[in-house]
Amino acid sequence: MAVIGIDLGGTKIQGVRLASGEVKDDAKLETPPDGPEAVAEAIASCVEKLGGVKHVDAIGIGIPGVVDVARGVVRRAPNLAGFESEVHFGPLVSRALGVERVVLENDVNAGTVAEHRLGAGKDADDVLGVFVGTGVGGGLVLGGRLHRGVTGAAGEIGHMVIREGGRQCGCGLDGHVEAYAGRAAIEREARRRQSAGEPTALVELAGDGRMKSSVLAKALDAGDRMAAELLDDAVEALGAGIASVVNVLDLGLVVVGGGVADKLGAGFVGRVEEAVRTRLFVPSSPVRVVPATLGDLAGAIGAALIAA
Amino acid sequence: MAVIGIDLGGTKIQGVRLASGEVKDDAKLETPPDGPEAVAEAIASCVEKLGGVKHVDAIGIGIPGVVDVARGVVRRAPNLAGFESEVHFGPLVSRALGVERVVLENDVNAGTVAEHRLGAGKDADDVLGVFVGTGVGGGLVLGGRLHRGVTGAAGEIGHMVIREGGRQCGCGLDGHVEAYAGRAAIEREARRRQSAGEPTALVELAGDGRMKSSVLAKALDAGDRMAAELLDDAVEALGAGIASVVNVLDLGLVVVGGGVADKLGAGFVGRVEEAVRTRLFVPSSPVRVVPATLGDLAGAIGAALIAA
Repeated sequence: MAVIGIDLGGTKIQGVRLASGEVKDDAKLETPPDGPEAVAEAIASCVEKLGGVKHVDAIGIGIPGVVDVARGVVRRAPNLAGFESEVHFGPLVSRALGVERVVLENDVNAGTVAEHRLGAGKDADDVLGVFVGTGVGGGLVLGGRLHRGVTGAAGEIGHMVIREGGRQCGCGLDGHVEAYAGRAAIEREARRRQSAGEPTALVELAGDGRMKSSVLAKALDAGDRMAAELLDDAVEALGAGIASVVNVLDLGLVVVGGGVADKLGAGFVGRVEEAVRTRLFVPSSPVRVVPATLGDLAGAIGAALIAA
Repeated sequence: MAVIGIDLGGTKIQGVRLASGEVKDDAKLETPPDGPEAVAEAIASCVEKLGGVKHVDAIGIGIPGVVDVARGVVRRAPNLAGFESEVHFGPLVSRALGVERVVLENDVNAGTVAEHRLGAGKDADDVLGVFVGTGVGGGLVLGGRLHRGVTGAAGEIGHMVIREGGRQCGCGLDGHVEAYAGRAAIEREARRRQSAGEPTALVELAGDGRMKSSVLAKALDAGDRMAAELLDDAVEALGAGIASVVNVLDLGLVVVGGGVADKLGAGFVGRVEEAVRTRLFVPSSPVRVVPATLGDLAGAIGAALIAA
């Protein structure tokens, strides 16, 4: 029997069909902007593309927000239209597809589980997964099991304080990792400094659109000074935040993925590892910081693994 | 049958006799400064005071340092004379007492287990224990079990970075919680500022000795401005460090104990709770920050519980 995993993102829905611990098929389509019913139908279309629900035991769905796993409820997913308040999404998908077992999980938790079971974190008991994209998310596997926490919000490394009174984070508080390392925060800071008269190619390269990871990579390659400074800040912030978690949990492995990390590549993750290493309380710690290996599919694979 | 727990400190040895989950007896004596053999004999004397080893199943020992639990080895305990490098202390005590089962554990881990099982953390699955004394130590119970980490150094909240480039910590790195909240760090800062001409009653009250928690409490009561400022710094540092751990693990309960916290009382812990609350990523988090309830005996009780 097989399991289907869905990674429900703000712009796209990524699905995989998993059997015997291997990805047998994958499919992708756009996320409709018309609310939960339309999203459930789009997930049904994605499942059709993956061969339908025949011989499928369960469906797992990674959600970019806060999830009540036990009740199958999305409590809040601000980047999904129509999910600003509580949605009983598990039962909705279950009805739309006629599959009884539908399991929701936070998308970054799902990605961490995938990297732990099938990716860069195989063979480790404890893994911190850090996903650097528009924001900075994280998940924790401790003693081989996903650690969810008392409200299901565990692993939020992006909102660890690394500089009291520092740069404001998108969440409104100050000095968080995400305020330096998230793509959206880097974009905000670049636009602010450029408006204040500081030269940079970043804003021009971005054009009318958002400042994608590829724009950051291009500006870095071109020797843009502001881009280099903003990346240094991001590396140091990630180093400080990750080192704090490594120090307090005495972890052996950190897996770094997400759009920004994937685009900037192993060199970026290597710099983050160095930044972590200078801040270790146990300098002889065997901790390693390694790139994620499952790329875009991590969330969908993890959702499938959790549902299985 | 009973279990004996020993809290081996730099200046005193605290023992308890535990049966049916209750403290039946306790005893205290000075830690001899003459190395491991002498300390093992002192522990034997303490056990005698507690009624000897008859009907005793096991002995647990809390160690102020890094412990290899599986091998019964103290890897490093800088505050104990003769324990600067590896000592096979478990077997040594086992021979001195004729008790086969002797279990070593880090003292703060032991204290956290005690508060979780019999103290302020009863009924909680996940507990962060924070002990504010000469330094700032911590322990983590996750899913009902002590989380030790890959090198046995988990829970080191004192060495979390809360202010990059900030005050230097006793460990040599910058901006750690302990650099603001540990008694020794507060003393260093007070003496430095007084030498630089800033008035304070702290140095005078301490006299020739070390600046104890009671000195800090007295200066605060007397309205000493520097003492108040240093305590504000300590509260904010603890708030930032604890909030980071609460945010990343999504904890429901933090127990604060140790010499400084016990001396300054519930008001101090209440201020720390407020400082945590302003920094929560999930403002509706049900997390509580409460005073430890087992006082001086936590380490010994925890060592007994772990050995049982």
